Amino acid sequence: MQDCIFCQIVAGKSLSHKVYEDDKFFGFLDIFPTTKGHALIIPKEHIRWVHDVPDFGLYWETVLKIEKAIERGLKTKWVQYMTHGLIPHAHIHILPRYDEVDQGFLPKKKIAKPSDEEMRQIAETISKNL
Amino acid sequence: MQDCIFCQIVAGKSLSHKVYEDDKFFGFLDIFPTTKGHALIIPKEHIRWVHDVPDFGLYWETVLKIEKAIERGLKTKWVQYMTHGLIPHAHIHILPRYDEVDQGFLPKKKIAKPSDEEMRQIAETISKNL
Repeated sequence: MQDCIFCQIVAGKSLSHKVYEDDKFFGFLDIFPTTKGHALIIPKEHIRWVHDVPDFGLYWETVLKIEKAIERGLKTKWVQYMTHGLIPHAHIHILPRYDEVDQGFLPKKKIAKPSDEEMRQIAETISKNL
Repeated sequence: MQDCIFCQIVAGKSLSHKVYEDDKFFGFLDIFPTTKGHALIIPKEHIRWVHDVPDFGLYWETVLKIEKAIERGLKTKWVQYMTHGLIPHAHIHILPRYDEVDQGFLPKKKIAKPSDEEMRQIAETISKNL
């Protein structure tokens, strides 16, 4: 869809810090990360909701693969999966957690927005650990 | 594990409002629901983290099946998946959302705890829609 930001990212018309790509799915860093390595995994096809994605099990297996790379590469304490759905193109959040004191359902505070160079390095670390 | 509350629920030693059961997975209502129909889906085997559950894709396919029943039975607006991990037995939250005004990542307010009879009816509605 022309006016969908995630479709534009898949098509390379909007820039993103890519961490993963295959013929069905695409993974990239959230542009306003809650924590370091916060990533979004989306189907390449424009589908509104996560629960309507065909190959639903494969979608999650793909998320698992990327999550393991985040664990290995970024030395997380634990990692969460989340779906919400405000942006109308299915996306699964992978949310790394680092702070064992702040164990709330979501981290109390977002990190400061990393620089482009920091984002590039984080994405590279994840990709290398796939 | 004897001292694991979720293992006790699977074994029927602790009561729960069951919504689903097969040979590998078990679904029941969260005892302190955030929203009506808030459910937890767990592997029967004691495994610490969601990302370590064998048959990971099947686990999520099972969650999808239950989520569709929640959508049909409870007339949700949308539904979220969440993992966190404070209770040390893998569990996936299915979190129905009903309020289109409150679109935060998590609902602003938990509902008041339903009565046992209300919980029984909610569980029955979900099971019947599987």
